[in-house]
Amino acid sequence: MGLFKHKGTVYTPVKDVDLGPFSTEFYLQANVKAPRMCGIWIKIFTLFLECPVLGTLLLYILKGNNLIHKLITDADLKESPLYVPLHPFEDIEEKEVKSLDSSLSPQEKVQFAIDCMPISAEEKLDEKTPSLSRWRIMDYSNAYNSGCMTPRQVAERFITAVDESTKSPLQMGFFIHYNADDILRQANESTTRYRKGKPISVLDGILVAVKDEIDCLPYPTTGGTKWLQDERRCTDDACCVNRLRLCGAILVGKTNMHELGSGTSGINPHYGPTRNPYDRNKIAGGSSSGSASVVSAGLCPISLGVDGGGSVRMPAALCGVVGLKPTFARIPHAGVLPLNWTVGMVGILAGTVEDALITLVVLTYDILFLPGSFKIGFKASIVPMFIVMQLLVAKLRAISPQGHHDDVRTCCSKALHKLQDSYAWKIIDVTIPEIEAMRLAHYITIGSECSTSLDSFKEKSFAELGWDVRVAQSIYGSFSSLEYLKAQRIRNRQLQFHMKIFDEADVIVSPTTGVTAYPIQDDALKTGELDYVNGAALVRYSIAGNFLGLPAVTVPVGYDKLGLPIGLQFIGRPWSEATLIHLAYAVQVMCMSEYRKPELYYDMLRGQKEE
Amino acid sequence: MGLFKHKGTVYTPVKDVDLGPFSTEFYLQANVKAPRMCGIWIKIFTLFLECPVLGTLLLYILKGNNLIHKLITDADLKESPLYVPLHPFEDIEEKEVKSLDSSLSPQEKVQFAIDCMPISAEEKLDEKTPSLSRWRIMDYSNAYNSGCMTPRQVAERFITAVDESTKSPLQMGFFIHYNADDILRQANESTTRYRKGKPISVLDGILVAVKDEIDCLPYPTTGGTKWLQDERRCTDDACCVNRLRLCGAILVGKTNMHELGSGTSGINPHYGPTRNPYDRNKIAGGSSSGSASVVSAGLCPISLGVDGGGSVRMPAALCGVVGLKPTFARIPHAGVLPLNWTVGMVGILAGTVEDALITLVVLTYDILFLPGSFKIGFKASIVPMFIVMQLLVAKLRAISPQGHHDDVRTCCSKALHKLQDSYAWKIIDVTIPEIEAMRLAHYITIGSECSTSLDSFKEKSFAELGWDVRVAQSIYGSFSSLEYLKAQRIRNRQLQFHMKIFDEADVIVSPTTGVTAYPIQDDALKTGELDYVNGAALVRYSIAGNFLGLPAVTVPVGYDKLGLPIGLQFIGRPWSEATLIHLAYAVQVMCMSEYRKPELYYDMLRGQKEE
Repeated sequence: MGLFKHKGTVYTPVKDVDLGPFSTEFYLQANVKAPRMCGIWIKIFTLFLECPVLGTLLLYILKGNNLIHKLITDADLKESPLYVPLHPFEDIEEKEVKSLDSSLSPQEKVQFAIDCMPISAEEKLDEKTPSLSRWRIMDYSNAYNSGCMTPRQVAERFITAVDESTKSPLQMGFFIHYNADDILRQANESTTRYRKGKPISVLDGILVAVKDEIDCLPYPTTGGTKWLQDERRCTDDACCVNRLRLCGAILVGKTNMHELGSGTSGINPHYGPTRNPYDRNKIAGGSSSGSASVVSAGLCPISLGVDGGGSVRMPAALCGVVGLKPTFARIPHAGVLPLNWTVGMVGILAGTVEDALITLVVLTYDILFLPGSFKIGFKASIVPMFIVMQLLVAKLRAISPQGHHDDVRTCCSKALHKLQDSYAWKIIDVTIPEIEAMRLAHYITIGSECSTSLDSFKEKSFAELGWDVRVAQSIYGSFSSLEYLKAQRIRNRQLQFHMKIFDEADVIVSPTTGVTAYPIQDDALKTGELDYVNGAALVRYSIAGNFLGLPAVTVPVGYDKLGLPIGLQFIGRPWSEATLIHLAYAVQVMCMSEYRKPELYYDMLRGQKEE
Repeated sequence: MGLFKHKGTVYTPVKDVDLGPFSTEFYLQANVKAPRMCGIWIKIFTLFLECPVLGTLLLYILKGNNLIHKLITDADLKESPLYVPLHPFEDIEEKEVKSLDSSLSPQEKVQFAIDCMPISAEEKLDEKTPSLSRWRIMDYSNAYNSGCMTPRQVAERFITAVDESTKSPLQMGFFIHYNADDILRQANESTTRYRKGKPISVLDGILVAVKDEIDCLPYPTTGGTKWLQDERRCTDDACCVNRLRLCGAILVGKTNMHELGSGTSGINPHYGPTRNPYDRNKIAGGSSSGSASVVSAGLCPISLGVDGGGSVRMPAALCGVVGLKPTFARIPHAGVLPLNWTVGMVGILAGTVEDALITLVVLTYDILFLPGSFKIGFKASIVPMFIVMQLLVAKLRAISPQGHHDDVRTCCSKALHKLQDSYAWKIIDVTIPEIEAMRLAHYITIGSECSTSLDSFKEKSFAELGWDVRVAQSIYGSFSSLEYLKAQRIRNRQLQFHMKIFDEADVIVSPTTGVTAYPIQDDALKTGELDYVNGAALVRYSIAGNFLGLPAVTVPVGYDKLGLPIGLQFIGRPWSEATLIHLAYAVQVMCMSEYRKPELYYDMLRGQKEE
C-alpha cells in the first residue's frame, strides 16, 4: 500500500475556482503520450498488451504517462459521484417559441415542426445558395407532391449512386449493409401514397440512413464488427427508427462506423474506411462516420447516429453537415447497442438545421419524468446571450499538434464576431477548468461501461476485432472501481462548473473539433490505426455534451485552407434544444452563401452527380 | 485475454425466474471460504495482502474461492446497471393512516407523532410488562412534566452509569467520546425549560446517543479510527443531529462502532469491543454497536446509527432493540462520514416501536423530489398482507454454520404463525433468488465506494487501522470497474425481483440475522478479528434494504436457548415506513409480555442498576 502511489492532483473546492476570463486555472494540454501505430507494430503492441503480467505493467505505464494516475486515480477531491447525468426537466422560458403537445402522433409532430419553420415551404433553398443546394426534407416533399419526382425515382438514383460509390475507384465506405429490394419496396409504397394524394407526412418518401449501432430491420446490427450480429440478433426496429418509419420515411440501410464506436477516425478494417466527401483521401471522422458522409454527399437529407463521446458531432463537423446530440434521455434508447449506459445518446445528422429540428421533434421522448412539452422556435429576432470560451479558442494551437488548427481557430472566431455584430449577442469570456481531467474521466467511464457490456462476448469474439479496437478494449478493461468512481466525482464537479456558467449565459460556444479531417494512410487500412493524439484533438470539445448529458449542436461555419469543413459547436443547459437550434440556424443563415459543395456530391432531385 | 477467464454464471432473464414457493431456484449457501483469523496470523496475512504482486495474487484467489468471479466478474447478464437506488416517491394508499404536513417544524412533527400513538400518554408501559420496562420518550416526558424527575437527575444517573460501565470489570465499550460537562449543560437548560413549564417538545430532555460516524458537536467524528478526526474536522452538527437538538434532545456522546463500518462484530481494537448487555462476553453486533447496546442497557430511549449493510438492524437484533433503516434518501445525509454513496443511510435504534416512529418523523426529509407528505398510522385493525420467504427460513441450518440458528428459525416461525393467527395476515411463500450474488454485489459496491472515499487518506493513515480493517480495505481496493458495474447490473435485477414480489405482498419478512450474538474471543481484542463466516450469516437478510434502498425494520421477537435476543425483520416497498412500523408494533404488542431484561440494565427513571 502506498508503494505504487503517485502524487495526485488535489482539486480546489468548486466554489473557489474562478470561471472568469482572467482565471489563473492552468489549461493542461492534452498530453497524449502514445505514438501513431498501425500495421505490424500495432499487432505486436496488442499481443504484448494482452499478456497477463506484461500487459498489466504496460497498461499501468500507459495510464501513468497519459496523466490518468495524476488527474484521476490518485486525485483528491471532495465531490460525491454523479453516476447518471439525468437532469430534472426544466421548462425553460424562451421568447417566441411554441410548445409541442407530446400527445401528438409522430405525423402531427412533423407538421407542427414544419409550421414553425422560418422559411415557407414554397421558398426554394437553392435560389438563395447557388454554391450548395442541400435539399431539405421540404424540398423532397414539394417535389413528390408536385409530381415532378417520385420516391421511387429518388430511391433508384440512390441505389445507383451507392452502388457506384462503393466500388473502385471511389470506395467511399458509406454503408455496411443496404438492400436494394427493401429500399425499392418502401419507395413503391410511398410513391403509391403520393399518387393517391395521401402521404403520411412530409417525411413520407424521405431517405434516412441509420448507423449500424441502431437496430433497423431487415438488417443485422454489426456495431462495425464481423461477429456481433451473430451474438445479438436484431429482431425489431429501434424505437427511434420505428418513429421515422411511422412517418413514412424510407430506411435505406446501415451506415459504416468506427468498430464498436471505439475510435474517432472511422477507419474500419472490416468494411473499409469511410471517406470524406470533401476529400476522399481524408477521414470522415467517427464513430458515426457513414451517417455523416452520406448526408454530406447529398444521398440523404438526414441520418441517425449515436453520440457517446462526440461521435455524431465530430463526423458532422468534418463532413460539413449539421450534428445534434440532444439532452441525455431526450430520445428513447431502446434498440440501440448497449455499448455504454451513461454517456451515449441517439443523435441526428442533417444537411440543414431545419431538417435536424423536424427529426428531433419526431424522435423526442414523451413519457415519464421527461418533458411533457417541448419548445421550438426559429425567430431570428430572438437574442439569446451567449458566451465564448476564450481560452479554448486561444489555446487551439497548443492542443492541436497536427491538422489545420490555425484555420479552425480563425474561422470560428471570425464567425463568432460576425454573429455578435449581426445579432448583438452578448459574449462573455469564461474559463472551463480541468477539461483534460474531464476528457480522461469520460474515457474511463465510457471505456469501463463498454468493456462491461461486451464482457460476455470477450472470449468468443474479441480476436475478430480490428487491432486498434483490441488495444482500446484492453485499456477499457484495465480500470479499477476506484478509477470509475473518481471519474464520477469529476462528473459531479464539472456539472457544477457548467451550471455556474449557465447561470450567466445560455450556451457555451467552441469549435466542434480541434482539427479538420486528416489523411487516411494506407498502412491503416487493414489493421486499423491507433492515433490517440489526433483522437484527443478531435474529441476535446465534445465531452461535456456526453459526460454531463448536455445538449449540443454543430453547424458548418467555414473551411480550412484545403477546403475541408469546420464546425462551430454550441453546448446548452439541459433541455435547451430550442435555443441551440435557434443559434445553429442563425449561423447557417449567415454562412450559407459561402457553403461549398463536396468533391463528391449527388444531387438527388436534379439527378446529377457532381464531382 | 481469456487466460484468466472463469466459467461465469449465465443469469436467466428476470421474466423467466420463478419467484413462487416451488421455484427450482437453487439456494446457494453463503460459501465463505476464509478462516477466522486474529492475533499474529492476521498480521502476517495483512502484510502478504499488502505486497504489490503477492497481494494481487492472493486477492485473486480469495475472490475466486468466494464465488466473486463466478457470480459477478465473469457472469453474463442483460440488465443495465442501476447506480443509485433512488425511488420516485409513491404516495402509498394505506387505511387509517394520517398524512404528515412537511411544512411543520420539528417540534410540531413530534406532537403529530404523539397524537397518532395507539397508547395514551398517561398509560404506563411497565404496568403491562413487568419483566422489562424500557422507558419510552413519553414516559420520560411525563416524569419531567410531573416534576417527579428532572433531565438533570437523569443526566447525572447517565454519567454515573457510563463511568461505571466503562471501567473494569464491565468495560462495555459503549462510547468513544462523551463529555459530562456538555451533557450537564444541556440537561440544565432542559431542566430550566421544564421548570418554566415550557419544554420544547416531548423530546426535551431525552437522552440521545449518536454513532461516531455522524457529526455531533462538541465531539470529533472518529469513524471508530484513531486518526480520521484529524484529517476531517467536525465543524457542525449533522443535519439529523440538529433536528433532534432543535426539539430539545440531549446529545450524550458518540457511540462505539466497528472501525470505518468495515465489519459486523463491533470489536474495535482501539476503543475496546462493544459488549452485549444481554451477555457481556458476547458481541453487540455492528457496525452501529454502541448505539444498539446503550439503548439495550436502558441508558437512552433512542440513538442514531448508520446502516450501509445492515449496520443498524444487526446490532439492534443482537441487543434486543428496535432498528429502523428508512427508504434511501428519506433522511438527510449531510454531516455523515461519506464512507459510501449509494447504500448507507442514517438509521434509528429505539427501545420501542413508538420511539422509533417519533424519531423518524423528526428526521424525515421534506424537500425536493422527496415525499411532501409522510403517512403514519398505528391502528392494529389494519391487516396488511405479508409474506414469508419460505426458503430463507427453511434453509437457516445450511447457511448458518455456527451460532444458534435453530433457535432463530424456530423463534421466527413461531412468531409468524402467532401473528398470522392474531391478525389474519395472509402469508405467501416466495423465493428470492440469487441472494448470495446480491450479497457479493453489495459487498463490491460498498467496498469500492468506501475505498474511493477514503483514498486520499490511504498513504498517511492506513497503517493506523486495525488489522481486520486493513484486510477489508485491501479487498475493497481490489475491485475492477467491470466488477463494480456488474454489481450494479445485479442491483437492477434484484430490484426487479423485489418489485415483482411487492406486486403481490406488502412486505417481506425474515429473521434479521442468521445467528445470535457470538462470543468475543480474547485473541481478537488487540488486532480485531476476521470472521467472514459469521459476518455473512449476520448480514445475509439485511442486504436488500441497502442495495435496493428499501425500508426495513427489526423488532425483538424472542430469545435463543442462551437468552440472547432474536430479531424479526420486515422489508417493505419504497416509502412504506408506515406499514413497517405498523407491523413492528403488532409484533411488539404480541411479544412484549415475554421480553426479558438484559444482564446489564439501567433503569434511568427508577434509578436502579439491575444486573
